[in-house]
Amino acid sequence: MLGQLVGPDIVEMIQNRQFADLRKALTTLPLDSVAEIFTDMAPQDAAVLFRLMPRDVAADIFEYMPVEAQEALMRSLGREQVAAVLNEMDPDDRTALLEELPGPVTQRLLMLLSPEERRIATELLGYPEESVGRIMTPDYVAVREGWTVGEVLDHIRRVGRDKETLNYIYVVDTQGRLIDEIRLREIILSPTATPLAQLMDRQYTALNVTDDQEEAVELFGRMDRTALPVVDSVGHLVGIVTVDDVLDVAQEEATEDMQKMAAVETLEAPYLRTGFFTLFRKRAIWLSVLFVGEMLTATAMGFFEEEISQAVVLTLFIPLIISSGGNSGGQATSLIIRSLAIHEINTKDWWRVLVREIGSGLALGLVLGLIAMIRIVLWPGTEDRYGPHYVMIGWTVALSLVGVVMYGTLIGSMLPLLLRKLGLDPAVSSTPFVATLVDVFGIVIYFSIASLLLRGTLL
Amino acid sequence: MLGQLVGPDIVEMIQNRQFADLRKALTTLPLDSVAEIFTDMAPQDAAVLFRLMPRDVAADIFEYMPVEAQEALMRSLGREQVAAVLNEMDPDDRTALLEELPGPVTQRLLMLLSPEERRIATELLGYPEESVGRIMTPDYVAVREGWTVGEVLDHIRRVGRDKETLNYIYVVDTQGRLIDEIRLREIILSPTATPLAQLMDRQYTALNVTDDQEEAVELFGRMDRTALPVVDSVGHLVGIVTVDDVLDVAQEEATEDMQKMAAVETLEAPYLRTGFFTLFRKRAIWLSVLFVGEMLTATAMGFFEEEISQAVVLTLFIPLIISSGGNSGGQATSLIIRSLAIHEINTKDWWRVLVREIGSGLALGLVLGLIAMIRIVLWPGTEDRYGPHYVMIGWTVALSLVGVVMYGTLIGSMLPLLLRKLGLDPAVSSTPFVATLVDVFGIVIYFSIASLLLRGTLL
Repeated sequence: MLGQLVGPDIVEMIQNRQFADLRKALTTLPLDSVAEIFTDMAPQDAAVLFRLMPRDVAADIFEYMPVEAQEALMRSLGREQVAAVLNEMDPDDRTALLEELPGPVTQRLLMLLSPEERRIATELLGYPEESVGRIMTPDYVAVREGWTVGEVLDHIRRVGRDKETLNYIYVVDTQGRLIDEIRLREIILSPTATPLAQLMDRQYTALNVTDDQEEAVELFGRMDRTALPVVDSVGHLVGIVTVDDVLDVAQEEATEDMQKMAAVETLEAPYLRTGFFTLFRKRAIWLSVLFVGEMLTATAMGFFEEEISQAVVLTLFIPLIISSGGNSGGQATSLIIRSLAIHEINTKDWWRVLVREIGSGLALGLVLGLIAMIRIVLWPGTEDRYGPHYVMIGWTVALSLVGVVMYGTLIGSMLPLLLRKLGLDPAVSSTPFVATLVDVFGIVIYFSIASLLLRGTLL
Repeated sequence: MLGQLVGPDIVEMIQNRQFADLRKALTTLPLDSVAEIFTDMAPQDAAVLFRLMPRDVAADIFEYMPVEAQEALMRSLGREQVAAVLNEMDPDDRTALLEELPGPVTQRLLMLLSPEERRIATELLGYPEESVGRIMTPDYVAVREGWTVGEVLDHIRRVGRDKETLNYIYVVDTQGRLIDEIRLREIILSPTATPLAQLMDRQYTALNVTDDQEEAVELFGRMDRTALPVVDSVGHLVGIVTVDDVLDVAQEEATEDMQKMAAVETLEAPYLRTGFFTLFRKRAIWLSVLFVGEMLTATAMGFFEEEISQAVVLTLFIPLIISSGGNSGGQATSLIIRSLAIHEINTKDWWRVLVREIGSGLALGLVLGLIAMIRIVLWPGTEDRYGPHYVMIGWTVALSLVGVVMYGTLIGSMLPLLLRKLGLDPAVSSTPFVATLVDVFGIVIYFSIASLLLRGTLL
């Protein structure tokens, strides 16, 4: 990628702190590469260099830096530079930054903003976390129904300079309610005398400011669009969401789900930027919970201690059986959680899912049971290994596998749907959580079948 | 979302097959809602209604439908309609469709395209799967350096009509090599007499046509852009990629990774649209592989059968110990695989990861060991439960937990990095795969420590 284009000369300039030459060299590089350089530099060096950059360029570079680097840089910048940078930033990028920072810092920074910018920032910050309001930008172009294409273009020339996107022009009524959206291309492609009304079809798709960001992801995914308008409860146009911000949201959502599914509390920062203790805590919590739950396996086995002492050979297959249940459960739970996340299925489909998973569980259990029979009954030297009753042992293991795998797929598929139905996050029905449930019950299934089939012979 | 706006009246019209009224009603709805309706209708009904829609509208609706529904509809449409629809589709949407269809069908459909459209389709299909070439569209606006803003705008008015996006105008030299990209806004905001050269900075970021689509996702995520140009090996501008297609790619990549991490072969279609047998096959393969691997646990335990028969109490803790190793391994592997996928870390960081995970593994192991000690040694009535040597048993379990958890975090974190280093997909080092590795070794650790600590007492 571009970052690799940064030659040794620049590295050298950074080392020798040749800021003037560095500044010249950087102007020839794309912004994101420059941002990478700033991110990798020592904050105080970065601060010096930052002061040398033209203000608006500096702001652009700043926007490309990760929040951690932004914070470090701000600490080493003077009050004035920080104020300048913040005021130059795009509102939504600024909101993203202010959100990540500790409350007091955010407050201090808000004070540095110009009254106008502060109004925008606080407004954006007023909407609930994870809501569309947090990722929207007020930088859109709104026009009136009565105008001509020429008037619209003049308006764009006047106000368009700082707008985040000009792909769509929004038509609002006198109360500021959204009544239509028109692609800029339509306007450019029409003669200037054309009345705007001629291009209007009064059809638009809008997000609500309180919608969950996930809904934005889903809507953008369904409609190939680069930006969508955001309206409040009464239909006033309050901002727009651009697809590049939605892409970031989609990636974050997926990362959070993966972490939850692996029983890790979601990390706020990238893996390597997360402090050791934080990382430990976010893993220890769940791991301990699962451990305490898994203790039930010891309790369950306690009930069968007699059988075990009589037929130690049975214990050999315990890991095999419970792990198979866990694996099949994990498959089901991951499939369902992801399908829920990308709106491929919803709780209404629980019945169809149930039917499929009962079928899948049975089929998968039979496959594993068959493999087990081959290994335990047909394999050479099995009698010395498992004793005279190896055939019944084979049946015990095979039948247990069918039961455990079916149980695993059922729990794994139904639990996420149940959690979603209860308004909880399905992703927390993580694979290991399902596995624990299956382990305990798996042991009960196994030994129950054993005492049934081996009663009188081995037991 | 919008789909819910479809009133009962429309449902009724569909039931009564009042196609004429339906057609009128549909023209008032946004395209994606109409597409949903078509998707839910019986294909033959949809076909009739489809014929009633204006050709270009029909094509737009078609683009919004899922591939499965598109295929079903095509089968019930006449040759001419299919040809018409295909020719009206956006090249990248058409490529997406042709890719999903079985080879022969694709060939048949290609024949229906106009020579020009066929050239585009085959060209797009010529690039490797998962490459940027597959999601790019040739619908961009290219201009020459020597032009004025006015000439550029005239050019856009002439050719812009069918272009997918006009956000960026691309400047190419006489050989068609990309030399600059300019935001349409810059052009609109400049007086028409301005020479284009004045707006040029000869700075652009381009994707290579053979780049992996993942790189596109990563670059778009970093650059906050709505479209990026695509060049071939010698720098010729061959197309553009728009961020809405990249969003789809990002979602697919995440879904595939989640499925792989749960030991499910990637599904080509949504869960409920995947045939029962396909779903079974994609799960059975891995499940069986893992099962055969897990059989080693039985073998491993076989070596310790003597110890087991002497101290049956030891078996009670086997599920507890191996599952803890699996869970901690799963946490590590999920964290690392996702960090690799979104380029937060790369193989160069293996050493930093190793150090962290050794630390985490030790800390997490100690926590679980402590809990185990409390449960086994300090809990009331422990002596009747675990016999006179319960203290040593406690130590055995606790120490085994430390060892197993550390081993789990190590395998879980290093395996993905190793696979990536070998050019393989880290996601296949799925959580259950790691768990299996840990289970087998966990049993060895446990019984080794047991025979060390309990030699002479219990054993």
